[in-house]
Amino acid sequence: MTVAARILPTGIPPLRREALEAPDSGIVEVFEHGFGRPGLIPLWAGEGDLPTPGFITDTAARSLAAGETFYTLQRGIPELRTAISAYMSRLYGKPLPPERFFVTIGGMHAIQIAMRIASGPEDEVIVPTPAWPNFLGALTVSGARAVLLPMQLEKGRWHLDLDRLAAAITPRTRVIVVNSPSNPTGWTATGAELHAVLELARRHDLWIVADEIYGRFVYGGDARAPSFHDFAGGEERVLYAQTFSKNWAMTGWRVGWLEAPAALGGMIENLVQYSTSGVATFVQRAAVTALEQGETFIARQIEIAKRGREIVLESARRTNRIELAPPEGAFYAFFRVLGVADVRKAALALVEEANVGVAPGTAFGPGGEGYFRLCYARKSEDVAEAMGRIEHWLAARS
Amino acid sequence: MTVAARILPTGIPPLRREALEAPDSGIVEVFEHGFGRPGLIPLWAGEGDLPTPGFITDTAARSLAAGETFYTLQRGIPELRTAISAYMSRLYGKPLPPERFFVTIGGMHAIQIAMRIASGPEDEVIVPTPAWPNFLGALTVSGARAVLLPMQLEKGRWHLDLDRLAAAITPRTRVIVVNSPSNPTGWTATGAELHAVLELARRHDLWIVADEIYGRFVYGGDARAPSFHDFAGGEERVLYAQTFSKNWAMTGWRVGWLEAPAALGGMIENLVQYSTSGVATFVQRAAVTALEQGETFIARQIEIAKRGREIVLESARRTNRIELAPPEGAFYAFFRVLGVADVRKAALALVEEANVGVAPGTAFGPGGEGYFRLCYARKSEDVAEAMGRIEHWLAARS
Repeated sequence: MTVAARILPTGIPPLRREALEAPDSGIVEVFEHGFGRPGLIPLWAGEGDLPTPGFITDTAARSLAAGETFYTLQRGIPELRTAISAYMSRLYGKPLPPERFFVTIGGMHAIQIAMRIASGPEDEVIVPTPAWPNFLGALTVSGARAVLLPMQLEKGRWHLDLDRLAAAITPRTRVIVVNSPSNPTGWTATGAELHAVLELARRHDLWIVADEIYGRFVYGGDARAPSFHDFAGGEERVLYAQTFSKNWAMTGWRVGWLEAPAALGGMIENLVQYSTSGVATFVQRAAVTALEQGETFIARQIEIAKRGREIVLESARRTNRIELAPPEGAFYAFFRVLGVADVRKAALALVEEANVGVAPGTAFGPGGEGYFRLCYARKSEDVAEAMGRIEHWLAARS
Repeated sequence: MTVAARILPTGIPPLRREALEAPDSGIVEVFEHGFGRPGLIPLWAGEGDLPTPGFITDTAARSLAAGETFYTLQRGIPELRTAISAYMSRLYGKPLPPERFFVTIGGMHAIQIAMRIASGPEDEVIVPTPAWPNFLGALTVSGARAVLLPMQLEKGRWHLDLDRLAAAITPRTRVIVVNSPSNPTGWTATGAELHAVLELARRHDLWIVADEIYGRFVYGGDARAPSFHDFAGGEERVLYAQTFSKNWAMTGWRVGWLEAPAALGGMIENLVQYSTSGVATFVQRAAVTALEQGETFIARQIEIAKRGREIVLESARRTNRIELAPPEGAFYAFFRVLGVADVRKAALALVEEANVGVAPGTAFGPGGEGYFRLCYARKSEDVAEAMGRIEHWLAARS
């Protein structure tokens, strides 16, 4: 359906509903409000403060110097697909062959392709919220309808109600989105929860779009979060979006992968061809290096996040006004502040008055009202300084 | 509409029609048949034999070394949007402000976004053919219906019949795709033709998706091809897809831009956010250098294409079996061979028996039957050697 956009100049023909309705990101509004402010501590985005390590950037520079600047393979170069396969097989303790992996322009592009495969106009996609706003964005653009399912904060833990999830399924449902560990809440599904969701998807013949990109950022002592890999067969209904952004500090590179049944390979190749036509070979070479030599760096990243998390939790205990479920995974604090109701306004004020950038919880859909999200994957001094500024700001307003 | 894919494993839920129907590229089939063959001269793809020049790659390497590896702005960094604006304003002799330019993952991504803005399910998009297969691919994925309008080869020139174009417009038509200079035919619209198409679009309130990426590769003595910029106002119905691939030998970098009415900026920013989330800053820095320092290199690229074109035309004259309209622009020869009807089979045989890679005309839609496409933007020796091999192969089969 095209829609006449009456506010636009007269030379603009009708615009498609799916494009018009793509929501503005509520994170971007605050980001743009504070972008470039001297001394601001930016905890609004999902990235740390470390640039990509030199051993990764050097590989890209060498590939460029060697003239690897021509068109490349749409599924990814074999070296990278093999390296991803080795990494994932090791992490999940089972053979995951290279044929399952498709290199994409970041996790976002993997989600776009997954949504195109599984859903579109007339279809419904269930998204537990609070959720990363880009899920809703991508499925709006695909033409599908989002069915938002607010999670509950119970006894200090976010909780996915499986009965309510089952009740949300209609004949039009095509996909359940599961993001565990969760951005923004830190909720990390147990194995039993994932297994139950998978059984539900099997019973109703649904796709699962699984975002497990924070799977190594967990705080309960395990090496990784539970995963659909622990329960699902290779040639079935799970589409996994993955990224190099978080583990290897490569947010700005725009490289990730889609993991899918190998039987969909031809279709996925075409969807890459007609959207981005592949990922630069020199970027893919750097990604191979990240996978093969990045473990020490990842351990350091996780350690930084652990310390940041502790600092936020201490601040919450100290002030007695900041409330949150201790995040089980990912690297965000999703918190309420007693006495602060309008979080969008407060996030803008925190930029101006405290020089700290946090994201308003309203950006993350139903269940996020009254919350803020901050990213603590930064050096301890900065996280401590930011929490101090927030505490000071709160004290001045109590 | 989702479709049960009966040939797939039982754990695969229904797949969306738009994804299933995305066509395989007929170029890729031949490419994969011959990929990696020793000594093969690859004229099947739209790229030259020169890697990206060092002054461009060096900029990317410097940006990487400086740690520019973080999330970036969705519309592109201001420096690049300003540099594109300066370049385009100079080329088209009119002010085109930075607000019109949106950095994308190559021209393909710009086309995907343009299609999402302007068309979708229930809509029709008119594509004159023979055409680059990715137009059809992108609009199939968007859910729109392609209305293919075969062009005519008349008196040694490809010809767009404006009466037939007007007759193809229905109440469902939303977009006319115009690719001039054309890949694959080399057809280059006159100013009068472009003006007539624009008037038609104005009359029926349609979008034009304009691919003018070969605009500087013209062979009639002008500095550039006629453009919709010569006739259309800034805030009206033309969406231009552009790329760094051809002028600056950056096919593998995946960077280009969408030029659109500035009033659509917020929408385009969201469509970038929910598909690729921007282009790497270090790639954008390299693109700035390309625009600011690339003119000598472009002149050389055009010179190479001119020589390649002459070699192909001489070969056609010599053999008396190769027929083509001398290409007015772009850098492809789209030719017929007397006595060769099954071009797909012949293209595969040319790989095996002559060690030359060309694309079968069938890949380019109605009007392409019986034709081959080859790219002559390579060094003269290789083009001459390839034509010699083709002539020899033909002679052995006559």
